[in-house]
Amino acid sequence: LPVDAALDSLAFDPAESLGFATIDHHRALRQGFPEVVFGAGKTDAQVVAIAERIAGHGDGFLVTRTAASAAAALQRRFGAAEWNEAGRTVLLRGRDVPRADGTLLIVTAGTSDLPVAEEAAVTADALGLSVSRLTDVGVAGIHRVLARRDVLASARVIVVVAGMDGALSSVVGGLVRVPVIAVPTSVGYGAAFAGLAPLLTMLNSCAAGVSVVNIDNGFGAAVAASRILHA
Amino acid sequence: LPVDAALDSLAFDPAESLGFATIDHHRALRQGFPEVVFGAGKTDAQVVAIAERIAGHGDGFLVTRTAASAAAALQRRFGAAEWNEAGRTVLLRGRDVPRADGTLLIVTAGTSDLPVAEEAAVTADALGLSVSRLTDVGVAGIHRVLARRDVLASARVIVVVAGMDGALSSVVGGLVRVPVIAVPTSVGYGAAFAGLAPLLTMLNSCAAGVSVVNIDNGFGAAVAASRILHA
Amino acid sequence: LPVDAALDSLAFDPAESLGFATIDHHRALRQGFPEVVFGAGKTDAQVVAIAERIAGHGDGFLVTRTAASAAAALQRRFGAAEWNEAGRTVLLRGRDVPRADGTLLIVTAGTSDLPVAEEAAVTADALGLSVSRLTDVGVAGIHRVLARRDVLASARVIVVVAGMDGALSSVVGGLVRVPVIAVPTSVGYGAAFAGLAPLLTMLNSCAAGVSVVNIDNGFGAAVAASRILHA
Amino acid sequence: LPVDAALDSLAFDPAESLGFATIDHHRALRQGFPEVVFGAGKTDAQVVAIAERIAGHGDGFLVTRTAASAAAALQRRFGAAEWNEAGRTVLLRGRDVPRADGTLLIVTAGTSDLPVAEEAAVTADALGLSVSRLTDVGVAGIHRVLARRDVLASARVIVVVAGMDGALSSVVGGLVRVPVIAVPTSVGYGAAFAGLAPLLTMLNSCAAGVSVVNIDNGFGAAVAASRILHA
Amino acid sequence: LPVDAALDSLAFDPAESLGFATIDHHRALRQGFPEVVFGAGKTDAQVVAIAERIAGHGDGFLVTRTAASAAAALQRRFGAAEWNEAGRTVLLRGRDVPRADGTLLIVTAGTSDLPVAEEAAVTADALGLSVSRLTDVGVAGIHRVLARRDVLASARVIVVVAGMDGALSSVVGGLVRVPVIAVPTSVGYGAAFAGLAPLLTMLNSCAAGVSVVNIDNGFGAAVAASRILHA
Amino acid sequence: LPVDAALDSLAFDPAESLGFATIDHHRALRQGFPEVVFGAGKTDAQVVAIAERIAGHGDGFLVTRTAASAAAALQRRFGAAEWNEAGRTVLLRGRDVPRADGTLLIVTAGTSDLPVAEEAAVTADALGLSVSRLTDVGVAGIHRVLARRDVLASARVIVVVAGMDGALSSVVGGLVRVPVIAVPTSVGYGAAFAGLAPLLTMLNSCAAGVSVVNIDNGFGAAVAASRILHA
Amino acid sequence: LPVDAALDSLAFDPAESLGFATIDHHRALRQGFPEVVFGAGKTDAQVVAIAERIAGHGDGFLVTRTAASAAAALQRRFGAAEWNEAGRTVLLRGRDVPRADGTLLIVTAGTSDLPVAEEAAVTADALGLSVSRLTDVGVAGIHRVLARRDVLASARVIVVVAGMDGALSSVVGGLVRVPVIAVPTSVGYGAAFAGLAPLLTMLNSCAAGVSVVNIDNGFGAAVAASRILHA
Amino acid sequence: LPVDAALDSLAFDPAESLGFATIDHHRALRQGFPEVVFGAGKTDAQVVAIAERIAGHGDGFLVTRTAASAAAALQRRFGAAEWNEAGRTVLLRGRDVPRADGTLLIVTAGTSDLPVAEEAAVTADALGLSVSRLTDVGVAGIHRVLARRDVLASARVIVVVAGMDGALSSVVGGLVRVPVIAVPTSVGYGAAFAGLAPLLTMLNSCAAGVSVVNIDNGFGAAVAASRILHA
Repeated sequence: LPVDAALDSLAFDPAESLGFATIDHHRALRQGFPEVVFGAGKTDAQVVAIAERIAGHGDGFLVTRTAASAAAALQRRFGAAEWNEAGRTVLLRGRDVPRADGTLLIVTAGTSDLPVAEEAAVTADALGLSVSRLTDVGVAGIHRVLARRDVLASARVIVVVAGMDGALSSVVGGLVRVPVIAVPTSVGYGAAFAGLAPLLTMLNSCAAGVSVVNIDNGFGAAVAASRILHA
Repeated sequence: LPVDAALDSLAFDPAESLGFATIDHHRALRQGFPEVVFGAGKTDAQVVAIAERIAGHGDGFLVTRTAASAAAALQRRFGAAEWNEAGRTVLLRGRDVPRADGTLLIVTAGTSDLPVAEEAAVTADALGLSVSRLTDVGVAGIHRVLARRDVLASARVIVVVAGMDGALSSVVGGLVRVPVIAVPTSVGYGAAFAGLAPLLTMLNSCAAGVSVVNIDNGFGAAVAASRILHA
Repeated sequence: LPVDAALDSLAFDPAESLGFATIDHHRALRQGFPEVVFGAGKTDAQVVAIAERIAGHGDGFLVTRTAASAAAALQRRFGAAEWNEAGRTVLLRGRDVPRADGTLLIVTAGTSDLPVAEEAAVTADALGLSVSRLTDVGVAGIHRVLARRDVLASARVIVVVAGMDGALSSVVGGLVRVPVIAVPTSVGYGAAFAGLAPLLTMLNSCAAGVSVVNIDNGFGAAVAASRILHA
Repeated sequence: LPVDAALDSLAFDPAESLGFATIDHHRALRQGFPEVVFGAGKTDAQVVAIAERIAGHGDGFLVTRTAASAAAALQRRFGAAEWNEAGRTVLLRGRDVPRADGTLLIVTAGTSDLPVAEEAAVTADALGLSVSRLTDVGVAGIHRVLARRDVLASARVIVVVAGMDGALSSVVGGLVRVPVIAVPTSVGYGAAFAGLAPLLTMLNSCAAGVSVVNIDNGFGAAVAASRILHA
Repeated sequence: LPVDAALDSLAFDPAESLGFATIDHHRALRQGFPEVVFGAGKTDAQVVAIAERIAGHGDGFLVTRTAASAAAALQRRFGAAEWNEAGRTVLLRGRDVPRADGTLLIVTAGTSDLPVAEEAAVTADALGLSVSRLTDVGVAGIHRVLARRDVLASARVIVVVAGMDGALSSVVGGLVRVPVIAVPTSVGYGAAFAGLAPLLTMLNSCAAGVSVVNIDNGFGAAVAASRILHA
Repeated sequence: LPVDAALDSLAFDPAESLGFATIDHHRALRQGFPEVVFGAGKTDAQVVAIAERIAGHGDGFLVTRTAASAAAALQRRFGAAEWNEAGRTVLLRGRDVPRADGTLLIVTAGTSDLPVAEEAAVTADALGLSVSRLTDVGVAGIHRVLARRDVLASARVIVVVAGMDGALSSVVGGLVRVPVIAVPTSVGYGAAFAGLAPLLTMLNSCAAGVSVVNIDNGFGAAVAASRILHA
Repeated sequence: LPVDAALDSLAFDPAESLGFATIDHHRALRQGFPEVVFGAGKTDAQVVAIAERIAGHGDGFLVTRTAASAAAALQRRFGAAEWNEAGRTVLLRGRDVPRADGTLLIVTAGTSDLPVAEEAAVTADALGLSVSRLTDVGVAGIHRVLARRDVLASARVIVVVAGMDGALSSVVGGLVRVPVIAVPTSVGYGAAFAGLAPLLTMLNSCAAGVSVVNIDNGFGAAVAASRILHA
Repeated sequence: LPVDAALDSLAFDPAESLGFATIDHHRALRQGFPEVVFGAGKTDAQVVAIAERIAGHGDGFLVTRTAASAAAALQRRFGAAEWNEAGRTVLLRGRDVPRADGTLLIVTAGTSDLPVAEEAAVTADALGLSVSRLTDVGVAGIHRVLARRDVLASARVIVVVAGMDGALSSVVGGLVRVPVIAVPTSVGYGAAFAGLAPLLTMLNSCAAGVSVVNIDNGFGAAVAASRILHA
């Protein structure tokens, strides 16, 4: 009990303030994953400064939605930082990230959905998950996904990434028992309305128990998977 | 040539006016289907009066979106008029409606989509089409539609009726070569937004060449099929 | 292997057709939960007929969005069927539903969100989950939820049900490591736009890894939880 | 029968995987048109690699929404590839594409709608259709389209391309018996909302049986026409 | 000059207050039309009380959007008040309403648009305009409106009332030189979105110089016409 | 300090749970106003039970959005409870509610906006504010509000209640120095979209420093005024 | 009569086709204004070619939404063409444009609305109208417009151009008897939604008889004014 | 009284016209803050010219939404003008701006919200308010804001700036008694819809009495605070 109380107290200690940012070093204790920096809307200097504080505590970090210039700055500062251009992520691997059992399968409907899938894959990797992929198996050629039912069956959690009609999540959701997390993407044009169409499709999935994250939110889908697989 | 000119002229003769309606008796010549009365927003008396004028020319008629009271009034006036409660149609069969070759298949995703499918089926029948049905084969149980590929293969035109995620049209569109007309329905709740979700899904179908009509517009889908099958 | 193949084949056998419905008796094998009937848009007679076929196979059933008249008809036909008025569900318990380890906690922001929470609780119960509740702890009085951190900590999965600003899911998502499934409700008025406001809030949760189901979809949230807890 | 079965089996053979793409070489058998590559959201290298695989099977290909740089790369690699700058398509003609009987007429409301019409025309040509055009005949000068009733009458299928008020499809739909496929365009400003206005107009066409594809989707309209004309 | 100043001063004298309403008796001087009461959202007692004050000044009044019970109460109190059930108006004719030169033509696309046309016609009559009508001439049968070009040509101002695709205003706007005021109606279903579709159509009319009023706002269209014809 | 700490601790003591509701008896300490019950979506029995608990602590209560049947039940149970039919509120006055200095002026654009103004007035009264009113002074007759500049000038805070175009808040906001809180109402039709139009108007007010609450949220406007006047 | 018939026939002669455009040389006869070219979405070459054909008939032309490069090309080709940079128009004045009696007053709410007002003013000038202006008189400083009631009173038609809250049209509409045409602009940010907010405000104007054109459509407002003033 | 009358008259004297702008020099008298120039949509020359006129009267000015080039031009012309790059403001301090008692606290949910907070802070400073800040305390780490309850408690007015889920305003609104003004920001992506999501969250805040300004409107929030603090 006292240990729990101490941990609990620790977990809620005030965070460190940089003036423009309040860093939550104890999130790892509280939530099991390291501080993640949302790169959009921050200057390169802000991103680097935040990363320095996190790394100064000996933690790794993940920057998402990273501008190319910020990525370069981070790599200059942290030699071990890994830049994923498609996924727009910079990762400095943390020490001692616990590995979870079970595989996260990331399924994409089309090639144009890959950047979002990459963001999910890098995030999942950073959180200690094992990732496999099934790519470009949208429902217009339904046999493509049916032919890989073995891959579907081997997953403990499935993330489905799809734009346009977003229909793949309904089909996959009906084929498996495991948790399915759907990520609508902004792939498409016209009445896709920058991802609104697949978002609505996924929210209305006729396959029960499919849950949904924000448009293009590969990061969020991976964290949701991590919450499940680290439980 | 003179015959064509005469027909052409006939087809564009002024229509008959009832004060509250302008009836286009020559539409049959011009478009190959009889006058259809959109029942919503008309009083029972207006619906009956319009029907009387059409029938007075020896034509049959179809009333869609018919209020129950208007249906009763029509059946009192026209003994041969047929009332389809689910589809909300009243049909007085025309004489000499030409039959089209080839079957129109109406596929529905769920039982709740049946009223829209009924409107389509009655309309198609009135226009001389042969209709078959495949019911409650939504993609959450993808094997239900795959198991009936023979039925899909036997159709010359397919109308897909689906609410919620509207995903069925993408799957069917990818399985067949023939024209697929998708009808979103207002079945669903919440983020289905009264049919907006399946409408967007269908407009963004990753199966190429699927075309779409208005939400709950079974009538329009049948007329689109008739334009194809009577060509 | 042959057993797997047989099961696999069984799982994809064609479903039983009632004309207006295609019943998927093998979904239990494929997905681990019994046939659920979406009551909205079906006549009472259709609901009862579908329930009879399912029960005829010895399965239990769950009807959601049940009209009061359909509920009465089901209870007349099935003495053991349980009617939850707030949640609008009728449940005939299945035999041998496997119980899952771990507790599902259903948290509601306000009293008006209870009907959706009830739908979730009945569904979860039908699927073999253990359910606990935390009620009326919206963030306007943040101490109400903070004071019950012990309850949050004891859950394996948390479903957060909230209308209006939907902010509770972001707070809960930041307090726990376990999976959080957010259900926006249509509670509210004006710019709540029948649930659109909390839906957007939840999709944009600043707490990472919160996933979302359709507005008022307590059923879907429970199935998503079941996919996690039965894994 | 055995031939049918073999063809059927062939049509559903697993597709070829490139890692970032899963190519469906048998779509020609199944749907009667060659693999089409949606160029948006793909890198130039990905587009070329996919094209190479398709061409390696001896098939032609069509790339839509092609970036100028990707078009140049494709033309360097495939000398026979044709670049349509307005329509943003690159076409390598397939061998032995069957020609369909009957003319597809593409009608545009204004000059600014021409890029979408070009995408439709190139696609139709690739699919073996004969194409004619009627340009800049929007309803503000209704006599422009009425004066060309002879052209309308000579078509087997009509694609109507219009932005702004999208009203042309209703007028054309009322003048002809043949199938009419409406393509809303993003031409316009303000309350055109990037094509939403003509999309809604076309979905609500008072001319019955007009069906609609996505905003700016000239490609989809041509495929829908091909489904009709190749039947 | 002093007369003008006096009139000007008079026109801006404070209005009479009833507690729940502030009546502007001098609007007739300022704007040339009598006080109009928007009936929706007011109790029957409030409507009658306001009418009494206006009539007490010797003015006539027009109540729009009148509930049937309010209409009955008004007719009990004012024997000369005229109730138009379709248009939902109650009119007590004012004395000495100046008649305007030139005819206002009200054109409707369909029979279901008549209630809005009635509201416009009663309002126009109350404001001293001469009204003629052209009914049910929607563009699906374009010859219906073309055949009546003489009627169009005889009007000084045209109000076009249309739901669904709202395309009639573009055609009429292109046929005449005189002012065209378009009124979208909530006639239609599905993607008509209660009048949004024709509203957008009319705002994007490819016929230049068509102006638009609110959905179902026959009253406003008539006042706009009166501003023109009384100038 | 210890007193502050004690108060602080008191303010955050756990709330009382009724199972379906968690009552926050200490909100008065924390926020300066009594518990308010949002009546919509609660059964009559729930509303009464919550009210009993609050009253049991000697506090008064305010129920908003009260169904008529719930109001009757509350008045049967609490003889001193006051029912405002237009505003749909039931108020049991609290003891010792501190009175604030300065007057809150509630300005309405039209008579149909009065129910929202009533909700605001009852709430303000319950919170100890002095309320005055200016009614039916919408900008179509701009002299109505200009003539009452003295009333505007005497207010310490102004709440502007308006539907339709919502323009009144911009005019009032430009005339006074004091805080202006704008309440859009659902009064109007068509493109008013149930209050969306005035909501957007008010959010975009060209008069700087006007702030806005939810559509029809008279209650919230009064609480915002109370936060200002009790400061 | 024969003259009328000839004119009528002339007015409906087929238009001249350029392949990418169908020019309607007789619109001047039919509608009283010269051919106007909508520059957006056309290449510079197309714009010049169309202009050449119109000028070749001895007519003037007006190009709206002109790209700077197209404007330069037009001025190289037509020395007398006038480029209005703010309004993005190129005008080659026509011969013998009839002048209308009465002044068109263009009122703007803010300086940022001037480009739209310029488009209106150039168009009006091209159509033979006399134009005056009242600038930057938005309702946040209501005395600015009230102080110029003399200018308002001298106009025969008023065009009100406003972004953000769009409230100016309601105030002006209530102050004058003459026709008021409201033009919402895309000036603003956030919840102005690129002109949607003032568009809705203007459609819901509490001043009766204000009509509205598309967002930023200064051109359309001027044509609407011309229809009135040339009548 | 005569003084009041004189002031009143002065306050409504006609404003100065520059042709493209009408400057309201007396707003300071009427509303207590100097003329503010909305920089968006104005040319650099217009911005400088307006600033010169204001400064010519001896007043300071504030330009918001300033383009970098306009800022440079202003600083060349006015040596004392201060450029805040993040907030995009240029401020020339006025003389004798009265200081208000009490602190305005600006709370931001994330680092990316800082530009909006800067606009608010500069504006508040220009209006004579004392400003303190609490940065990056979004609800995903609820302890960050709870740990600073002392700072919250010391404020007289609080502005909450948040994008994404916008949930911070509900939590802060429930913790304090003082006025809370919420500013949604366009920070986020996908279903944040450029600030729509936090806007709706804030309008539906379950904490009563939170009022809202436009998306990204830091300026407006500061003026609203000034109206309160200068009262």
